[in-house]
Amino acid sequence: MKIGILGTGVVGNTIGSKLIESGHEVKMGSRTANNEKAAAWVNANGANASHGTFSDAAAFGEIIFNATKGEISIAALELSDEKNLNGKVLIDIANPLDFSNGFPPTLSVCNTNSLGEIIQKTFPQLKVVKALNTINCGLMLNPMGLKGKHDLFICGNDAEAKSKVTALLQSFGWKNIHDLGDITNARATEMLLPVWVRLYGKFHTAHFNFHIVK
Amino acid sequence: MKIGILGTGVVGNTIGSKLIESGHEVKMGSRTANNEKAAAWVNANGANASHGTFSDAAAFGEIIFNATKGEISIAALELSDEKNLNGKVLIDIANPLDFSNGFPPTLSVCNTNSLGEIIQKTFPQLKVVKALNTINCGLMLNPMGLKGKHDLFICGNDAEAKSKVTALLQSFGWKNIHDLGDITNARATEMLLPVWVRLYGKFHTAHFNFHIVK
Repeated sequence: MKIGILGTGVVGNTIGSKLIESGHEVKMGSRTANNEKAAAWVNANGANASHGTFSDAAAFGEIIFNATKGEISIAALELSDEKNLNGKVLIDIANPLDFSNGFPPTLSVCNTNSLGEIIQKTFPQLKVVKALNTINCGLMLNPMGLKGKHDLFICGNDAEAKSKVTALLQSFGWKNIHDLGDITNARATEMLLPVWVRLYGKFHTAHFNFHIVK
Repeated sequence: MKIGILGTGVVGNTIGSKLIESGHEVKMGSRTANNEKAAAWVNANGANASHGTFSDAAAFGEIIFNATKGEISIAALELSDEKNLNGKVLIDIANPLDFSNGFPPTLSVCNTNSLGEIIQKTFPQLKVVKALNTINCGLMLNPMGLKGKHDLFICGNDAEAKSKVTALLQSFGWKNIHDLGDITNARATEMLLPVWVRLYGKFHTAHFNFHIVK
């Protein structure tokens, strides 16, 4: 599948490489067409890897990953050009973390709104699926990296988009995927971050996830 | 141990009965000394069960459980009389849930504040330990009710109070208890509720909990 990734940080790099490994074609996008980090990632990942602007990556992908920081997600999507986004599936893995008062971060939006909803409202014809935002990038497409069962939450307004994302996630080994409903439920999964960041601070590792035990 | 419970609802009833079963003496408190639900609970639970006002229950307990709804917790604690609270350990199991716009509820306070912190600030000499607020009352003192490992979070400013609460919880079978630090970390555990209530809505049961998988 052709996949666009917005963002050239460790999250974009990690999931991008994993997607390439699994046979997908990936274009990584950033503000500029000649981003050095993106170029280095392309060099390391072979012929199915390419890079360009946010707009190039959005135009390229059948599915687009928002792997930007929450604080710049809307700007990155605006630079992607709405015409490249309309009708596409966006997997929003970002969180509205606010580190301005240090660690642990607060959320810049929560409770009665969420980053997922803001993206969906700003780009009404984009099919936003919130997913993977509750785990570290090293586990996002590598669920077998943890011993034992663990769980993932998705939500979004478009059932077909959620099916497509679920199939992609299952292809990477995800089993316990809980569809929480429409995109307003991104409030709930983004609000898992406050406990996640504290556990990260306590465990000194991001290599963990939640499993729902019944 | 002598334990006071503030609140006569299903939460207070359930944990009260479990404490009695385990040999503790429990006084359940409410606004009035002649609360019918509290009287019925006493009748059902034998000689170690008693009831009275919030103030009576607070004066009685070495440890006090706040089993009131979040929206009336401060009022219930004020009626308990600060002199009955000072120096005591309060296990705050309440959540600041706001159902005014239906289900799922939002939180009336979150992100940069929490019910746990508000209680601690209002009653500075009370030793508030936030705990058990992330699970249904049927599991609070009955962790073996679920198959498999699952986890609990506690936080609070007073190390000795947390040790005392941890020992009490361990006596009921809790094993994976994560101390997140001071009472400001109640923000994180209260912010687990938005995902908890959605899972409750989806599963049609409250009989589940989170396990952290590493």
